[in-house]
Amino acid sequence: MVQRLPPLDSAFAALADATRRGVLERLGRGEASISELAGDFDMTLTGMKKHVQVLEDAGLVATEKIGRVRFCRLGPRRLEEETAWIARYQAMLEARYDRLGEFLEHTTGDRS
Amino acid sequence: MVQRLPPLDSAFAALADATRRGVLERLGRGEASISELAGDFDMTLTGMKKHVQVLEDAGLVATEKIGRVRFCRLGPRRLEEETAWIARYQAMLEARYDRLGEFLEHTTGDRS
Repeated sequence: MVQRLPPLDSAFAALADATRRGVLERLGRGEASISELAGDFDMTLTGMKKHVQVLEDAGLVATEKIGRVRFCRLGPRRLEEETAWIARYQAMLEARYDRLGEFLEHTTGDRS
Repeated sequence: MVQRLPPLDSAFAALADATRRGVLERLGRGEASISELAGDFDMTLTGMKKHVQVLEDAGLVATEKIGRVRFCRLGPRRLEEETAWIARYQAMLEARYDRLGEFLEHTTGDRS
């Protein structure tokens, strides 16, 4: 399937759902078929297929069809770009609090 | 406004859009009004208001109305929970590759 969304968008969008995060955590304990996942999450096969498709499009899950069964496993995406982006946000937020701290210090110092 | 989405969902969903990530990066360089942001991103005021609302609901942007102008700044959300979740995914992926490596090693060892 062609990847239409920019990578960062598709990864964050895929992670914005508790069931999909749960599927990734489940696959962290080992491979599973889509029907096993549907059973684990008390969901229809169709519903689970959609979630797996979103995860696969985002590169967070790889699937392989063996006979009539489609198996899912984690990867290959390592979320390194996403981690770097969040780290930048955190640094910007820290810098803002630092500037605010300095401002308050100067303001207090100016009071006489 | 009442926060309806679970926190992790709303933060990841807010980050799943290039304009919204751009707004956060812009606010990392200093506060801005919604109309300044709309100008910077060549967007209507209504369009930018919607993006800012999503960011505010996710706790990534705080706004304050001074007179008739609404100013935006980063925070207060630190994305610590999100970072921790991604780190867990990365650890699971590493563990999977380790298991795969061990399996291949044993398989190669067994060949005679």
